[in-house]
Amino acid sequence: MSELDFLIGQLVVANRILAKEDVVDAYGHVSFRHPDKPERFFLSRSIAPELVERGDIVEHDLEGNAIGDEPRSLYLERFIHGGIYEARPDVQAVVHAHSEAVLPFSIAVEPLRPVIHSGSFMGRTVPVWDIADNFGDTNLLVSNIAQGRDLAECLGANNVALMRGHGFAAASKSLIEVVRMSVYVPRNARALLAGLGLGPVKSLTQGEIDARNRGYGPYSVETWRAWEFWASKAGCGHLVGKRPGEAEKPAKG
Amino acid sequence: MSELDFLIGQLVVANRILAKEDVVDAYGHVSFRHPDKPERFFLSRSIAPELVERGDIVEHDLEGNAIGDEPRSLYLERFIHGGIYEARPDVQAVVHAHSEAVLPFSIAVEPLRPVIHSGSFMGRTVPVWDIADNFGDTNLLVSNIAQGRDLAECLGANNVALMRGHGFAAASKSLIEVVRMSVYVPRNARALLAGLGLGPVKSLTQGEIDARNRGYGPYSVETWRAWEFWASKAGCGHLVGKRPGEAEKPAKG
Amino acid sequence: MSELDFLIGQLVVANRILAKEDVVDAYGHVSFRHPDKPERFFLSRSIAPELVERGDIVEHDLEGNAIGDEPRSLYLERFIHGGIYEARPDVQAVVHAHSEAVLPFSIAVEPLRPVIHSGSFMGRTVPVWDIADNFGDTNLLVSNIAQGRDLAECLGANNVALMRGHGFAAASKSLIEVVRMSVYVPRNARALLAGLGLGPVKSLTQGEIDARNRGYGPYSVETWRAWEFWASKAGCGHLVGKRPGEAEKPAKG
Amino acid sequence: MSELDFLIGQLVVANRILAKEDVVDAYGHVSFRHPDKPERFFLSRSIAPELVERGDIVEHDLEGNAIGDEPRSLYLERFIHGGIYEARPDVQAVVHAHSEAVLPFSIAVEPLRPVIHSGSFMGRTVPVWDIADNFGDTNLLVSNIAQGRDLAECLGANNVALMRGHGFAAASKSLIEVVRMSVYVPRNARALLAGLGLGPVKSLTQGEIDARNRGYGPYSVETWRAWEFWASKAGCGHLVGKRPGEAEKPAKG
Repeated sequence: MSELDFLIGQLVVANRILAKEDVVDAYGHVSFRHPDKPERFFLSRSIAPELVERGDIVEHDLEGNAIGDEPRSLYLERFIHGGIYEARPDVQAVVHAHSEAVLPFSIAVEPLRPVIHSGSFMGRTVPVWDIADNFGDTNLLVSNIAQGRDLAECLGANNVALMRGHGFAAASKSLIEVVRMSVYVPRNARALLAGLGLGPVKSLTQGEIDARNRGYGPYSVETWRAWEFWASKAGCGHLVGKRPGEAEKPAKG
Repeated sequence: MSELDFLIGQLVVANRILAKEDVVDAYGHVSFRHPDKPERFFLSRSIAPELVERGDIVEHDLEGNAIGDEPRSLYLERFIHGGIYEARPDVQAVVHAHSEAVLPFSIAVEPLRPVIHSGSFMGRTVPVWDIADNFGDTNLLVSNIAQGRDLAECLGANNVALMRGHGFAAASKSLIEVVRMSVYVPRNARALLAGLGLGPVKSLTQGEIDARNRGYGPYSVETWRAWEFWASKAGCGHLVGKRPGEAEKPAKG
Repeated sequence: MSELDFLIGQLVVANRILAKEDVVDAYGHVSFRHPDKPERFFLSRSIAPELVERGDIVEHDLEGNAIGDEPRSLYLERFIHGGIYEARPDVQAVVHAHSEAVLPFSIAVEPLRPVIHSGSFMGRTVPVWDIADNFGDTNLLVSNIAQGRDLAECLGANNVALMRGHGFAAASKSLIEVVRMSVYVPRNARALLAGLGLGPVKSLTQGEIDARNRGYGPYSVETWRAWEFWASKAGCGHLVGKRPGEAEKPAKG
Repeated sequence: MSELDFLIGQLVVANRILAKEDVVDAYGHVSFRHPDKPERFFLSRSIAPELVERGDIVEHDLEGNAIGDEPRSLYLERFIHGGIYEARPDVQAVVHAHSEAVLPFSIAVEPLRPVIHSGSFMGRTVPVWDIADNFGDTNLLVSNIAQGRDLAECLGANNVALMRGHGFAAASKSLIEVVRMSVYVPRNARALLAGLGLGPVKSLTQGEIDARNRGYGPYSVETWRAWEFWASKAGCGHLVGKRPGEAEKPAKG
């Protein structure tokens, strides 16, 4: 199996996990960058993530066009993905979601920040992108590449940007990591919200965030354990396959 | 299939979705206006929404009487629907529900307003109707057409009215839209409640609300995607059928 | 079928509903008074409510003794039921539960009161019984008839008493009504808690509570609709049977 | 069946219960001390608790080494268990989990304390262990025996220690008790959090905690009822077996 085949299979799993874990509902999407052609990415056609199958995955260029003759509808907000892949060569996977728990932090001035260990991957700073700043009154959706690029600029070198009154965009160096981050960012938001109700709270330090980043790879035992567990909960454990070891890691091309 | 047949099928789906999404429980109901006879509407007989089937749908006149010889019990609060259809010729579908998340805003002075993009359809202003204002001490239920008309007057040209200590009534130009609104109004209420706990919050502007209204139709790809997803979650995906395109849209009569 | 047979069947349903609606977990119980012998009541032996079947129902006297030769374990807190039936001849059914949503009001000074229409049945005043007031340091459980009587005295003529750091006891004139109240008291508590976070809230008036009490009977269409719905959700819809009409109401004896 | 065989079976049940009750997700673990060799304990290999079966249970020494030739991955944080068993000869079972409800109390200054009767088993004082105090910037995980011992020192003679931004460690004199405590500590945390939003709250007294400790054994009717109920909910009721009476209690060795 090629790395691309492997990743397309994992993208199906990623969609199902995000749906089951209530990160996405009818809306929201997850993509990965083509492992061989960095100016391309893979994203489902426009259907609810829970229902995504292999045949629904569509190759896009960075401006959000489908490659080849594609008669099916594309996600309206595919420009989120294109904009981020274009600005951030280090990013291999992107999630956009409307997860309920992050919404309060997108409309208030209190910043979202990591306070629990599993939230560390969002990094120390989570900017809030307000589409109105540069585009005035819109339907709040990222509906063209200019808006996608503007969001990517706000994201900068961070891993997560909140989108005012809308949701978040998360970027990571692997598909498994961006899914894990998308599951734990809302949990961190809930813990922070509740903690602030009790008084001042202690955030993770930069040193702690760095230590956690050093400790985790996408195919490490601890990360893969969560991947298998979430897939099993989402009813697609049979699609996960074996954890790629250093030796067996799927070959390029 | 006539438009009426199509809509009756979708009304069954609407009932199941509202139950699954926890908008209604044993109580609450959804109706649509007869596409050909604007002085009539369709609503289930008095059973829990989750259990509604095609044969349970009853035609009513605007004063809440069942058409023909109907031996079965009707919903006590059918006057909510009649009152709104009478006052608002533009309204084609109505939901009444006790959704838990809106209740705090129905008993406190803080107004419910749209702060997330999916909440935009409630519009800028959500009035609170207090049955006690004009009817004194009641059981809080809208049990006659005078009360239904009073509620409709409070609703005015808005899309949603809260009912003090009771729930909400939502009105829209299509069945799919009123269901979507009824799912997202509670989500918006939760986000607003949590956001207010963090400090002042940013609401959607009128321009944003307008832009969103322009962008969505009941049978657009993005709206239908949610409809199919919710129906699938509710176990009645097989009742949804194909998305009506502009060409294939069910014929009048 | 005798009224007693009918009620025992409904008691099984009541147990399953309370479990499914998260009012009880492994702990909590529901009873009804013998329709012909007012100094007796029926309560399950000591098992989790979700698992209760017809054969588990045990007849007790008002001091909490099982009638006849009963080798099986009884609920430790059966004295809650005995104490209330003894003090309140009008009460025909009792629930005791640890429902999470009422707990905050049992440990704080803010009183629980009805703010939503479905919460009206708790009545205007919900006293908090603190076992420590008369019994000092205990395990907080109502483990003898003296404690049961003390709780009943605190309950007085009300329908619900909170038990400090423990849960609530609810009393009503029918089994269906005490179950409905037990489902909606926690919902009311959540709405009140959230509403208080927004500022001052409006409670139901005594006139509204009275109007609601006049409007509902245990076998009215609206009440039975909820009973059937909850039973169906709890997987025991087949145990419910037909709604007793005025004519068909199960005969005494 | 030997006591060891019995306990290994119950450890499988414990894993499934903790997963179903949302105390653990992909992460978190539960162990018991070898009944005959106090310098050994049993813990699953590194898999998600929901998936644990008999064959996954691994014997460890108190420094966290697997006994014998064990090719499979071990839990990274097994040192939590070793550290506590070493410091506390009275402890027979340990849980570590990231339960969401305790996290706010781990990052704020407001102390977690028992306010509901089922929370009594945490004891009057719940210290917060901050790994940074003695180890500076880490990934927050207890990854060596020095850190496990430091946590155990902070735990002292208490039953639960919170771990800053991470979760909790709970210790008890039996497996059933540590699971019950782990289910109810989060519930107590939620009740306390909500109660504090209403104003000052009343905690359990030391006398009440003592009274409750005297009233419960791991195999008492009331405790076993919850164990059976939770196992049934978790789909492993068939693994529970019969409640060990005083006579039938599984023999040592």
